[in-house]
Amino acid sequence: MRRKYAVILGNLGNTKDRFCDGYKENPPSAEMLTRAAAIPHVSGIELVGTWDVRHDNVREIRAALHDSGLQCVSIIPDLFGDKLYSKGSYSGPDAAVRRHAIDYTKRMCDIARALSCPLLNLWPGQDGYDYLLSADYYEARQWLSDAVAELASACPDLSFALEYKPKEPRTHSYLARMADTLLLAAETGCANVGVTIDTGHAFVGGEVVGEAIVLAKRAGGRLFHMHFNDNHVTTDDDMIVGTVHTVCYLEMIYWLDRCGYTGWLSMDQYPYREDAAGAIGESIEWLREFSAIVDENREVIDRLVARQDAVATSRFLRSVLVGSRFGAQAGPEPASVART
Amino acid sequence: MRRKYAVILGNLGNTKDRFCDGYKENPPSAEMLTRAAAIPHVSGIELVGTWDVRHDNVREIRAALHDSGLQCVSIIPDLFGDKLYSKGSYSGPDAAVRRHAIDYTKRMCDIARALSCPLLNLWPGQDGYDYLLSADYYEARQWLSDAVAELASACPDLSFALEYKPKEPRTHSYLARMADTLLLAAETGCANVGVTIDTGHAFVGGEVVGEAIVLAKRAGGRLFHMHFNDNHVTTDDDMIVGTVHTVCYLEMIYWLDRCGYTGWLSMDQYPYREDAAGAIGESIEWLREFSAIVDENREVIDRLVARQDAVATSRFLRSVLVGSRFGAQAGPEPASVART
Amino acid sequence: MRRKYAVILGNLGNTKDRFCDGYKENPPSAEMLTRAAAIPHVSGIELVGTWDVRHDNVREIRAALHDSGLQCVSIIPDLFGDKLYSKGSYSGPDAAVRRHAIDYTKRMCDIARALSCPLLNLWPGQDGYDYLLSADYYEARQWLSDAVAELASACPDLSFALEYKPKEPRTHSYLARMADTLLLAAETGCANVGVTIDTGHAFVGGEVVGEAIVLAKRAGGRLFHMHFNDNHVTTDDDMIVGTVHTVCYLEMIYWLDRCGYTGWLSMDQYPYREDAAGAIGESIEWLREFSAIVDENREVIDRLVARQDAVATSRFLRSVLVGSRFGAQAGPEPASVART
Amino acid sequence: MRRKYAVILGNLGNTKDRFCDGYKENPPSAEMLTRAAAIPHVSGIELVGTWDVRHDNVREIRAALHDSGLQCVSIIPDLFGDKLYSKGSYSGPDAAVRRHAIDYTKRMCDIARALSCPLLNLWPGQDGYDYLLSADYYEARQWLSDAVAELASACPDLSFALEYKPKEPRTHSYLARMADTLLLAAETGCANVGVTIDTGHAFVGGEVVGEAIVLAKRAGGRLFHMHFNDNHVTTDDDMIVGTVHTVCYLEMIYWLDRCGYTGWLSMDQYPYREDAAGAIGESIEWLREFSAIVDENREVIDRLVARQDAVATSRFLRSVLVGSRFGAQAGPEPASVART
Repeated sequence: MRRKYAVILGNLGNTKDRFCDGYKENPPSAEMLTRAAAIPHVSGIELVGTWDVRHDNVREIRAALHDSGLQCVSIIPDLFGDKLYSKGSYSGPDAAVRRHAIDYTKRMCDIARALSCPLLNLWPGQDGYDYLLSADYYEARQWLSDAVAELASACPDLSFALEYKPKEPRTHSYLARMADTLLLAAETGCANVGVTIDTGHAFVGGEVVGEAIVLAKRAGGRLFHMHFNDNHVTTDDDMIVGTVHTVCYLEMIYWLDRCGYTGWLSMDQYPYREDAAGAIGESIEWLREFSAIVDENREVIDRLVARQDAVATSRFLRSVLVGSRFGAQAGPEPASVART
Repeated sequence: MRRKYAVILGNLGNTKDRFCDGYKENPPSAEMLTRAAAIPHVSGIELVGTWDVRHDNVREIRAALHDSGLQCVSIIPDLFGDKLYSKGSYSGPDAAVRRHAIDYTKRMCDIARALSCPLLNLWPGQDGYDYLLSADYYEARQWLSDAVAELASACPDLSFALEYKPKEPRTHSYLARMADTLLLAAETGCANVGVTIDTGHAFVGGEVVGEAIVLAKRAGGRLFHMHFNDNHVTTDDDMIVGTVHTVCYLEMIYWLDRCGYTGWLSMDQYPYREDAAGAIGESIEWLREFSAIVDENREVIDRLVARQDAVATSRFLRSVLVGSRFGAQAGPEPASVART
Repeated sequence: MRRKYAVILGNLGNTKDRFCDGYKENPPSAEMLTRAAAIPHVSGIELVGTWDVRHDNVREIRAALHDSGLQCVSIIPDLFGDKLYSKGSYSGPDAAVRRHAIDYTKRMCDIARALSCPLLNLWPGQDGYDYLLSADYYEARQWLSDAVAELASACPDLSFALEYKPKEPRTHSYLARMADTLLLAAETGCANVGVTIDTGHAFVGGEVVGEAIVLAKRAGGRLFHMHFNDNHVTTDDDMIVGTVHTVCYLEMIYWLDRCGYTGWLSMDQYPYREDAAGAIGESIEWLREFSAIVDENREVIDRLVARQDAVATSRFLRSVLVGSRFGAQAGPEPASVART
Repeated sequence: MRRKYAVILGNLGNTKDRFCDGYKENPPSAEMLTRAAAIPHVSGIELVGTWDVRHDNVREIRAALHDSGLQCVSIIPDLFGDKLYSKGSYSGPDAAVRRHAIDYTKRMCDIARALSCPLLNLWPGQDGYDYLLSADYYEARQWLSDAVAELASACPDLSFALEYKPKEPRTHSYLARMADTLLLAAETGCANVGVTIDTGHAFVGGEVVGEAIVLAKRAGGRLFHMHFNDNHVTTDDDMIVGTVHTVCYLEMIYWLDRCGYTGWLSMDQYPYREDAAGAIGESIEWLREFSAIVDENREVIDRLVARQDAVATSRFLRSVLVGSRFGAQAGPEPASVART
């Protein structure tokens, strides 16, 4: 199966946290673009609104994209870095702030069109709450739903992918997991509203990504975009794919294919202390290997998920992940999987 | 606000785990019923199918209920204790097992009617998976949805409340959290399919129960039933309400009222090593106190959730939970909340 | 029992995260000091090295402390904000960096003496690892132990309190929980090396703080300092005490007293979007109330922890936390606790 | 490196949970022994006291072991299945129960000698607490320490390996993680007291097993025994090694070797719904493969843990786990690792 790989431009920039202002230097967007284009197999790029692209530099970026040969696969409006949104953007308690967030996003839609980019990736990171009994969940959800509906109705030519995440920067986000995001997407009544899975966000949320993919499929085919990274489960560590988890990536590639996903596999990492291009490149290489394994064993996996025999699944995983140094004695033959 | 308290009968019986066969004795159902009826404020009872009630003892149970003065508020079909369902009941891979589970539930519907009980509480505990790449999430969810739709269509006079739980006895349950359960309820197309929140299951799932209540309200008013207990978050410890958490119970009572919930507050505990009636009675007393606090401060809380000021919320919580030994000097006056 | 309350100066300053550079303004240290001194019951202050206090401003700070009436209760060397330490300070792979960190800390010891401050609070936040198979745990721990031993030996007149935290900014910290920190303290062979409990760090680590206090007591009385805040368990949210958890604070006050802790109760919060002085003041008020409850009920609690009857404990907690609106009927009399 | 594989006999028996009394049949111990001996590479067996071996059947078991060719590598006294210990065995509040637990363990020591077994694996599963403010952590820990010291002093010819586990069957165990268990081992003052790592227990405790191995090494070489299984992190699922995690097993084999561990690699699973011998056999095959990878790449890994470059580690892991279908283009050559 043909896969398309992309990266979020800012992955190549500075990294920081609440303790340290910067572990790296922050190169200009143009230089980051050059570095991104040099990563093997990358053919798409995601740009963060305001940070990377604004009305005043959109022509310049368009030209730079053309030169780099990269396709702009999403615009990510900055709904998280501006302290104006500190208590929420689309769902904030102040009507003027909500209006500002919607109008700003509409301008980002114009930029998307100018860059021939078909998708807005909406991550409303500040939309949530920190303390109990300190937010009106009902009203906030209504505002969030209304805002997305207004945007999607105003721009029927664009897709809007809602990126969920259980926490950070708020202790609780309104779009926390796949299923609640699908409920909100359904509330909007717009078919051009869907979901982005960030694999690390899903891990933090306690999801099995393969199952989240199935939920989106069953809810009207609403999986629009994929962000890839790995983590140690409790925090969005934004690490190199495959350095913590292994099996679940095989599983998610399988289910992406089973559910007919043809979108981008985009890298969304935050390489605090690592060489950025190296870390992103590694993730893509892991995904290429996982994809090859799935492509070579699709029918076997079809039978395994139907068979529900963990011993058979283990034997298969072992054969593709660590090989079979010890020959047929190492257990009943994998062929038995096929015969069941 | 008038609250109605209930208990699951089996809470008064034996307790065990995979290491120990029994920490207590298992009294006959009739004796448990007498004990349940003696717990102050209990007026409703939930019965587990097969364990407590079967076709062969339904008349006897009906008479015992009458004598006890308790109302049967739900029947919980046993979809979890029979090893026939070890790989799933409604969603199991074997069509004959799925049929068995549906037909068994229909018989439990007959029993419900015989006991004038309006609600089936469906907890398909064995419906899920343990290993990755060892289950067909798509097909299983279809079967689960089909089964519930068949039941709800066949019994339009009864309500079906789906009780979600992220894990145990499987490592992953298909009905894991509020939002995915609402998606499945919507799939059935039946208005008499809703959801049961078990507060401890929600904690394990990383949910804020107040927000889960709002999700159910927004999805068509699908909150049908409530099970109460407490835990240390990572496991369904089924402990006494209020012994770990405090603030979140106040919040959930507030949101139950805001969303117009008029159903039962039912205790679902598993007092491994405690006096069962004492443990259940304690939970009810805590809930009565939390309810009284909400009833006395509803307008204050309305303002706090709108105001989104954690310092003001903290001051309020402090005043109702630990009092104000130290007088007005202990901070700006709570009255200021009202003035905002 | 007499309690002494303190605060970390920087709590009153700007807040930020990896997405947003600042939710607030950053006032000068002198102004923060004035604000801190104005919080009721605060009599101690903790200063972060370099950020708040350096050789070039130590006289000025000394005068400002004198004017404010606040006692400097700890110096916290900045081992976390300087990117020089991005791969570790005392345990980093580069010997020159380790030497720098030790020498810098010695200078902070001089400053502590100049401010009549008896304690260095060491939080080596960058000392840990992010990826598996990417750190030499054995050697790093040796270096960390050697560094602390060198410092404690060089400054026998000062106390060194190691503040543990399971993660952030690294995915894994070397000083992660109470017990491993006690092992390292023991390795140093220095009696002036002990531990700081940050209550939120302990929650993230899955600890019951009361039990952590006991571990420190049993390991030679090594609990030297306390940082207070609250969180939603999975992340160091640095919230107002009492806004998430309740019962565990009562328990920790009880065990602090049982184990003879006479040190400071210091607030360590990070009020991202809240009024800082208000948030810190609230935490102190909660702690004063919890302390009063423990002081008034010490013998009752002594009996409860010996009795191990969760129903009795629940009844007691209910009586002190939400009162007994409903009188004696609300359960067996609390007096029964005393009689057992 | 030569590895020795063992299994706990009961892994081949019935499985159950608090909902279902049995997913399987429970064969006689003799038959389980035959099945265990038939699993490739198994040469050691662990027996649970009372369940598998008692004074009345010790000769019979001795003969059966001889016939099977298996070596008894540990006796696990049953401190968890008898409701006498429901509030603790060595640390329980009742002195008579504590005495019973110690005397019972001494009888198990006699049986160990009769079976030429050098090690008692002590898992005091009931020793812990469920509710806050309902246990005397200080006294309980003293009793636990005293009991282990009495046993180890009485039987200097035997080793006592304390198996830690954060929770289940209690919500909190006194021996929760490596470091606190090492503190207790040190308290006993007995060199024949050490620790058992159960890999799944460590995952639940948030430990990186490689680091736990290092802690035990540094605390006097106290790692005595290893139990292997896998899980989804939040619960002790006792699954097949390698079906959830991959990289961390490579890491733990590396650190076992680096720290000179020469003990048994014993399988401790609970195959609820799986073929037991198949599930155990799979775990051993995974471990053989992981061991082979470590053996073949030891010097490379030595350099990687010293180098602390996650990109280089990722490249190595990718090469050994999923191969390099795509050749040298797939990134800088792994050989570069060697040259650094």
